[in-house]
Amino acid sequence: MKSEVGLLDKIAAYVLKQKGKQLRPTLVLLSANVCGGITDGTYRAAALVELLHTATLIHDDVVDTADMRRGFYSINALWKNKVAVLMGDYLLSRGLLLSLKHDDFRFLKIVTDAVRRMSEGELLQIEKTRQLDIDEATYFKIISDKTASLLASCTEIGAASATTDETHQKKMNTIGENLGIAFQIQDDILDYEGDSSQTGKPIGGDIKEKKITLPLIYALNQATTDERKNILSILKSEKKRSELNKTVIDFVKTKGGIEYAEAKAQMYAKQSRDLLAAFPDTQSRRSMEQLIQYSIERKK
Amino acid sequence: MKSEVGLLDKIAAYVLKQKGKQLRPTLVLLSANVCGGITDGTYRAAALVELLHTATLIHDDVVDTADMRRGFYSINALWKNKVAVLMGDYLLSRGLLLSLKHDDFRFLKIVTDAVRRMSEGELLQIEKTRQLDIDEATYFKIISDKTASLLASCTEIGAASATTDETHQKKMNTIGENLGIAFQIQDDILDYEGDSSQTGKPIGGDIKEKKITLPLIYALNQATTDERKNILSILKSEKKRSELNKTVIDFVKTKGGIEYAEAKAQMYAKQSRDLLAAFPDTQSRRSMEQLIQYSIERKK
Repeated sequence: MKSEVGLLDKIAAYVLKQKGKQLRPTLVLLSANVCGGITDGTYRAAALVELLHTATLIHDDVVDTADMRRGFYSINALWKNKVAVLMGDYLLSRGLLLSLKHDDFRFLKIVTDAVRRMSEGELLQIEKTRQLDIDEATYFKIISDKTASLLASCTEIGAASATTDETHQKKMNTIGENLGIAFQIQDDILDYEGDSSQTGKPIGGDIKEKKITLPLIYALNQATTDERKNILSILKSEKKRSELNKTVIDFVKTKGGIEYAEAKAQMYAKQSRDLLAAFPDTQSRRSMEQLIQYSIERKK
Repeated sequence: MKSEVGLLDKIAAYVLKQKGKQLRPTLVLLSANVCGGITDGTYRAAALVELLHTATLIHDDVVDTADMRRGFYSINALWKNKVAVLMGDYLLSRGLLLSLKHDDFRFLKIVTDAVRRMSEGELLQIEKTRQLDIDEATYFKIISDKTASLLASCTEIGAASATTDETHQKKMNTIGENLGIAFQIQDDILDYEGDSSQTGKPIGGDIKEKKITLPLIYALNQATTDERKNILSILKSEKKRSELNKTVIDFVKTKGGIEYAEAKAQMYAKQSRDLLAAFPDTQSRRSMEQLIQYSIERKK
């Protein structure tokens, strides 16, 4: 990651310090092992997805005007939007160049299509958020595009680095997709009842951004017309954040929105585990099962 | 470019309306013709660079917080930064997918390396701009990375789509690089003496952003220590834009900064033309010569 630009090296070093969960490269390695074993290509694939994911996180923070990431200040908070956009582009190009250098074209196809789906999903979320009108089907379309697509590409790419068997690659893709949906539902739950000292980001961030996620969608569906009107008008209003948070969070909890979302997350996690059961019972498979479980139990 | 996201199609249609100069795809087509003839790959290469260029323009407008582009409102001005960042990512992924679909790996390598150089060049410019200290060597490093790299990739990719002769591909790369440097110098001159009704963007945008370009670098080198201090303190100050513009523009003109930059642009254009003279004298070569001439004579 060395370059001739001092500012770039400084930001790269800052990004490296905050390793995060490294869920995506871990998924690549585990999927490869489950499908026969890690190869040289597996490590490059893992680096590609982590570079790409880091690039999109940096762009996401611009998109969400977020000041914190992984418990650190975000790049846009420290160096402004323009530097964050460019740094994202730079990391993206470095990831692509790594793959192109080694002729990893299959990996590139898998991952680039995930990038397309991620930006489509985010744009759909923005479009729907403006209208304050997201039903459950739209919610699942959004999260499967914006989050699950990349996790599906991680498990598929891991499989592709280990085996030429396309049935296995496809199965691994679906395992990652289901895991990703479960993972994002848990993320959305944590916005309602996480501990910001653990998650590294403030609670109620989605509410502030008027993002309507599964716990709230369910709660609104359970509400009377008047309750619904009231909550939507609160979301639209420019009330103080703490006040807004409390009302919406209480509403969601009273209507059972959290429990509903938890049940859905468990359902997707189960689908992921059931598909995985078709692969040989190895240590790697058991680790992957634990990772699926972690995705819905995690507190950060 | 059709998708399932209404907002995305709306923005794509808006972007398509403002065709711009289409310099980059034109360069790809002409280079292919100069090197033996247009192939199917040439058209895909032309689409790839235009998608990529449009993506970077959209990101650039976020980076520069510009409200106008090609005489239209910019995406970030109309739809905010977040949509602009995502739209850029989306167009980038569509360009990559087009190439991956057709196994145009050689094109991808050429173009992705240009993307890396473009973001490096922009980041170097930001780093140096903050310090208000750019010498001529740094200026040329910045513009060759941020602008010339993509034009060089256009001429190289055009050549690569027409011939396997690597000497010709390399020569075409250098022709594009020199053309790109000339083109960017002219761009920087237009910020001092363009007509905003023609350029589609306000005059003095660089001055406002504290970007120090060739005309000003030369003028500062010609100035006395006191004059230099005075101009730099004006740049640092938060004076009214019109006042700031007038002082700096007058200073640059008095010191001969415009003429110096024009001479440099002509020098690079000549280098580009001289290299081109080695290719057969065809209609395409003459068109390309005209395009080189246009790059330094253009008023927009």
